Amino acid sequence: MPKGFRDIEAGEIRAMSGMLARIREVYEIYGFEPLETPAIEYTDALGKFLPDQDRPNEGVFSFTDEDDRWLSLRYDLTAPLARYVAANFDRLPKPFRRYAVGPVWRNEKPGPGRYRQFMQFDADTVGTDNIAADAEICMLAADTMEALGFQRGEYVIKVNSRKVLDGVMEAIGVGGPEDAGRRLTVLRAVDKLDRLGIDGVRLLLGPGRKDESGDFTKGAGLSDVQVATVVAYLTAQGRDGAEKLARVEALIRESSTGTAAVSDLVDLLSLCQDAGYPQGRIGFDPSVVRGLEYYTGPVFEAELTFEVRNEEGQTVRFGSVGGGGRYDDLVARFTGQRVPATGFSMGVSRLQAALAARGKAKARAGRGPVVVLVMDRSELPRYQRLAQQLRAARIPAEMYLGTSGMKAQMKYADRRGSPCVVIQGGDEVARGEVQIKDLIEGARLSATITDSKEWREARPAQVSVPEAELVSAVRSVLARHERG
Amino acid sequence: MPKGFRDIEAGEIRAMSGMLARIREVYEIYGFEPLETPAIEYTDALGKFLPDQDRPNEGVFSFTDEDDRWLSLRYDLTAPLARYVAANFDRLPKPFRRYAVGPVWRNEKPGPGRYRQFMQFDADTVGTDNIAADAEICMLAADTMEALGFQRGEYVIKVNSRKVLDGVMEAIGVGGPEDAGRRLTVLRAVDKLDRLGIDGVRLLLGPGRKDESGDFTKGAGLSDVQVATVVAYLTAQGRDGAEKLARVEALIRESSTGTAAVSDLVDLLSLCQDAGYPQGRIGFDPSVVRGLEYYTGPVFEAELTFEVRNEEGQTVRFGSVGGGGRYDDLVARFTGQRVPATGFSMGVSRLQAALAARGKAKARAGRGPVVVLVMDRSELPRYQRLAQQLRAARIPAEMYLGTSGMKAQMKYADRRGSPCVVIQGGDEVARGEVQIKDLIEGARLSATITDSKEWREARPAQVSVPEAELVSAVRSVLARHERG
Repeated sequence: MPKGFRDIEAGEIRAMSGMLARIREVYEIYGFEPLETPAIEYTDALGKFLPDQDRPNEGVFSFTDEDDRWLSLRYDLTAPLARYVAANFDRLPKPFRRYAVGPVWRNEKPGPGRYRQFMQFDADTVGTDNIAADAEICMLAADTMEALGFQRGEYVIKVNSRKVLDGVMEAIGVGGPEDAGRRLTVLRAVDKLDRLGIDGVRLLLGPGRKDESGDFTKGAGLSDVQVATVVAYLTAQGRDGAEKLARVEALIRESSTGTAAVSDLVDLLSLCQDAGYPQGRIGFDPSVVRGLEYYTGPVFEAELTFEVRNEEGQTVRFGSVGGGGRYDDLVARFTGQRVPATGFSMGVSRLQAALAARGKAKARAGRGPVVVLVMDRSELPRYQRLAQQLRAARIPAEMYLGTSGMKAQMKYADRRGSPCVVIQGGDEVARGEVQIKDLIEGARLSATITDSKEWREARPAQVSVPEAELVSAVRSVLARHERG
Repeated sequence: MPKGFRDIEAGEIRAMSGMLARIREVYEIYGFEPLETPAIEYTDALGKFLPDQDRPNEGVFSFTDEDDRWLSLRYDLTAPLARYVAANFDRLPKPFRRYAVGPVWRNEKPGPGRYRQFMQFDADTVGTDNIAADAEICMLAADTMEALGFQRGEYVIKVNSRKVLDGVMEAIGVGGPEDAGRRLTVLRAVDKLDRLGIDGVRLLLGPGRKDESGDFTKGAGLSDVQVATVVAYLTAQGRDGAEKLARVEALIRESSTGTAAVSDLVDLLSLCQDAGYPQGRIGFDPSVVRGLEYYTGPVFEAELTFEVRNEEGQTVRFGSVGGGGRYDDLVARFTGQRVPATGFSMGVSRLQAALAARGKAKARAGRGPVVVLVMDRSELPRYQRLAQQLRAARIPAEMYLGTSGMKAQMKYADRRGSPCVVIQGGDEVARGEVQIKDLIEGARLSATITDSKEWREARPAQVSVPEAELVSAVRSVLARHERG
């Protein structure tokens, strides 16, 4: 298998599909409708919006079609949505609200927990610049966290605005086109507040920073006054989001873009608060940047605030499990016409890792099928019929299909997690009976009964019934272990 | 969007997910476990097994990774399964039974109903050459058809064997390696029996055939005696599969491969018959070839036998909706060790087209969300709270997020298929009330009440309730139209 890819096995698939069903329910309750777009799009249509791309097509899997046009695997679900909306604009209800779930691909360096194919679950509202649409997306994200079982206080939806960040850049005099590179360095530094703390960020805004390993990261080279402004922005205090935002506004007073954006964020947070989502659930966070380049206004990030151990054994906040924001110019790439839009993307794999860390989504081992053992290869039709009887009663079942003997068959049933096996040897056939062996009870007893004579005499967890009672006898074994 | 790809909208997605749930249930009842493999594999690992490939990599989307190794999008779910089994052989229960569902990609010429991305739903048993495994796969396919709502008589699982076809080739003296090309031409002719009838096939086996448009297809150039043998094979008659197979055996008596394969098919059909799947559900069909080159033994095809109109307006059998077979050499490509396997792949899109043709899967329009109208933009928090109340009661709901007036908002609600809208203007606020307007009832009445005075006085399908009764009032509207 190529590096950066992985297989997903039964337990994880079962846990995942339960999680997807819960997310889907929240999205539908909010009035979003499903849409599926293909995995492959014209490269042009996707655009180049991935964070930190230096080379063209970096980050994207691309190839040419028979007419030598470039095609790419989608790297998110937002760019294909913009293409869909542009193509179907006239016939869509507006605003258009859609959700989408599916794999996306990134041709990036893989790492621990970082794959080249992963799943996203998005909700977007297209065709309105109403800040209430952004507020609703944040409420949707908060409700999704709780639907997945995270408690209040374990998560926060952090809100900021690209335009507020633009205002900060203008305030420190790096707002012009000639400073694009430096702005990117500043934003990367801001983005690292959670990880490095304010002192680390201060170094990255100034001369640069040497990490524990001795590696030096060149800084943005801002002057002390400029650094102080950015630090004041990042550490703005206040009893609530509105107060914090008032302080931010004071810092960027000269940027009309910035002050308008602050006013939008105040409205957004107040709509959330009025609807029952106070600061602890949805709050302003000046360090939220979001990497994708198509964002034009408010940006959101869902963060899990509880602590887990990372790969190095350090205790850290679990961190981001999804994000989004407003992207008012993405559809215009196709039609020329500005179609404002906002949305959110849940990182399904990250969420699942978080649930596992929380002990809320143990990969469900699942109950295996009932296995009908093959005692005599010439009697296959007989065993097959027994399996079909169970299946007709909607009990997962199978006849053993290998060639091994009794002991290996029992071992197979164990590995499949079978609740019981069905045995019909010559004696049972003669008596018109089947024997049912309860593997779960058997395993429990074998831990307590150590005397083999006692075991043989008790024949625990084993019962013979008339063949006609096969289904009901198996059902009572299943009932005995229901959720046990 | 690149040609050969398509977007799938809400109605179709809802119908599709119901269908997938029914297929999944049957597969799980048969004891198969889910597995997901990535979309991208090493090109080498997938191999070149697509039908009728002349050029290398024809039919597959491919590209190179950063180490210049060739990667491809999977063209089916079987080749990735072989790769998975080879990589995890020691720790898997054997036989290993897995199901998988997901998109596959083919870089082929698109046509009507023929896309470059489509979904397959597979079940496979790996690690046994027991013919009972093949029989079970056929029963699974038959049960799946019925779970989807096809009646007995509307479908048949057709069974043949690659080795029986090999036997026919040997019988007519084209079994050697020098005749590989001619064998392919003969198999293509055999494969066309359904479409062209026996006379058309006879021409394609001999000199060739001119179709209605005047296009000439070169034949296999067999002699009259050779053609007669193939025709006798294709038209073998008998009261049941066993009798038909006895006639086939007489034709290929000299091929030991062929006669052993006939005996396997007799066993397969007898296991099915004993388990309650008579000839009409699972039967021998000498014309089944299956294009994929990795098949080594029995091959299966699920055919829908009812008639539909094709694109040219002709009445034809609906035809194939899936297929499979035994592929004993696919895992050995990785490990060198022979691991026999058999499986079936359901063509999900074809099945959905069939259900639609049968009127069994009308794309469910679905009920849209309740829409809370925006009467006064300064009151957004109020409307937002109303929407959140409904959502908290698990009623899909939204506040209108556009900027248009009352009439456009009503039209929006109509297009979303909303059951009702919630209206709270100044008068209602003053009285602490909300107005609920039943759009379904309203549409029905507007068809019967033509007098506008009568309409105004009746104010049909509209009710004012105290704000505290919003949820229960909306619930009674929903209940009124439940499944109506």
